[in-house]
Amino acid sequence: MVISFVGVGLIGGSAAITLRKRGFATRLIGVDNNPQHVEQALALGLVDEALPLDEAVKAADLVALAVPVNVARELLPRMLSLLKEDAVLVDMGSTKSGICAVARSHSKRAQYVASHPMAGTEYSGPTAAVDGLFDGKKAIVCEQNLSADFALNRALSMYHSLNMEVLFYTNAEAHDRHVAYVSHISHVSSFMLGLTVLEVEKSEKHILDLAGTGFESTVRLAKSSPVTWTPIFLQNAASVSHALEKYIENLQRFKVCIDEHSAEGITALIAEANKIEKIIK
Amino acid sequence: MVISFVGVGLIGGSAAITLRKRGFATRLIGVDNNPQHVEQALALGLVDEALPLDEAVKAADLVALAVPVNVARELLPRMLSLLKEDAVLVDMGSTKSGICAVARSHSKRAQYVASHPMAGTEYSGPTAAVDGLFDGKKAIVCEQNLSADFALNRALSMYHSLNMEVLFYTNAEAHDRHVAYVSHISHVSSFMLGLTVLEVEKSEKHILDLAGTGFESTVRLAKSSPVTWTPIFLQNAASVSHALEKYIENLQRFKVCIDEHSAEGITALIAEANKIEKIIK
Repeated sequence: MVISFVGVGLIGGSAAITLRKRGFATRLIGVDNNPQHVEQALALGLVDEALPLDEAVKAADLVALAVPVNVARELLPRMLSLLKEDAVLVDMGSTKSGICAVARSHSKRAQYVASHPMAGTEYSGPTAAVDGLFDGKKAIVCEQNLSADFALNRALSMYHSLNMEVLFYTNAEAHDRHVAYVSHISHVSSFMLGLTVLEVEKSEKHILDLAGTGFESTVRLAKSSPVTWTPIFLQNAASVSHALEKYIENLQRFKVCIDEHSAEGITALIAEANKIEKIIK
Repeated sequence: MVISFVGVGLIGGSAAITLRKRGFATRLIGVDNNPQHVEQALALGLVDEALPLDEAVKAADLVALAVPVNVARELLPRMLSLLKEDAVLVDMGSTKSGICAVARSHSKRAQYVASHPMAGTEYSGPTAAVDGLFDGKKAIVCEQNLSADFALNRALSMYHSLNMEVLFYTNAEAHDRHVAYVSHISHVSSFMLGLTVLEVEKSEKHILDLAGTGFESTVRLAKSSPVTWTPIFLQNAASVSHALEKYIENLQRFKVCIDEHSAEGITALIAEANKIEKIIK
């Protein structure tokens, strides 16, 4: 199968490596608006050749769209229009309602599959691409009822080849609401934790000295790129804002317990939070 | 060397395993006020025998105090009084100013070393103990000028045997202020993130389905025990409260940018936070 990756960064590049290795892709075409990324993707062998967007879309059996979500929404209608009649376009972005809205009225909507592979690291670009990134993780497909069977099947085959379990969220808004809590505010939490520590601990030496493993894992996501994350927060603004409001309220409750030296209050909040261990092993 | 571990949980138990393996300890005595923990520590071979507190302290060349910080502060004066003349007591708690204040006027202060090995996991108790927990991590020693040379040397030997780098923070209050930022608010952040998600996502199925690796690493610390953490937050209340205030302020700044759909504002905050990558590799 000829696959064109539009966006050869962490997500597109990692998928390309694994799909080639597992024989799913016979020819891989890369597209990226960053010339340095194109060079790197070729040098690293992530793709066989680089083409301009239009040619890459026309040449593919499967087009995987793995660019920042603002760019994805912009490119989607033109890409759908260029798609071969029996080809499929899968987008791999972290927000779904904006892009689904743009696709809904397109005459080739049935050839499009709206998806979100839940995998990643805090790094980005072709040099961040790794084999096995998706193994054992979940991929979400939204509005599956608007995709043709052949399109859905091709997308599912790709995700199965990546060794992902596919879950269906018919409603793209429901998907976005959920990921606001389990993915997007994790990132805000981490970004602002990093910022707070940097502001207060002027001496980098101190941070380095005192950073325990707990801090490192909590602040890891703070290295993530604004190119990826700013458009995600903007496209999911209402849900992320709501989630943040709840999060800030809970932090304030905790702070009140500390200020009142309430051992009972602190313990009760921690005990509630501990219930997460039933869910995240 | 005969070492008595007062507290045979994650920290004491892990140190016991490694110190025996590396030949630093010839005989290991365990003390724990939880009878089940005593049984587990013996069954797992973390220690050779269990003794009541007083006997264990009297029998040891080195006593390692690895209990919740409120218990440590309570036990310290009595333990120091019971210590053999040439023996050393090291405490391994996460807060230092409270315990240092209690020790300061004791006639055997010179035999005490106030320390904080910066290592751990979100699990607790003897069954959480693992070999190598401390390898390559940092241990802080406070008020080293109040410890006798022989005491300091014995504590340093222990930490070197655990393969830790030792850093000195003469001022215990300065230590507590720093760890409020790099360790304690990481935990608050994670506890309240877990709580927020649990409150909103009533269906556990949804959380499980949507949990990406980012969420898992950010929320990992939310499994930590209140028995350990409530006393830490109480003993370091002023610094943790101050750190939380700054953290909440930054989250509110971020929320304002989202509410105003300010791509520039969000990008600027993320770019600032990204600077953490210069420090935490």
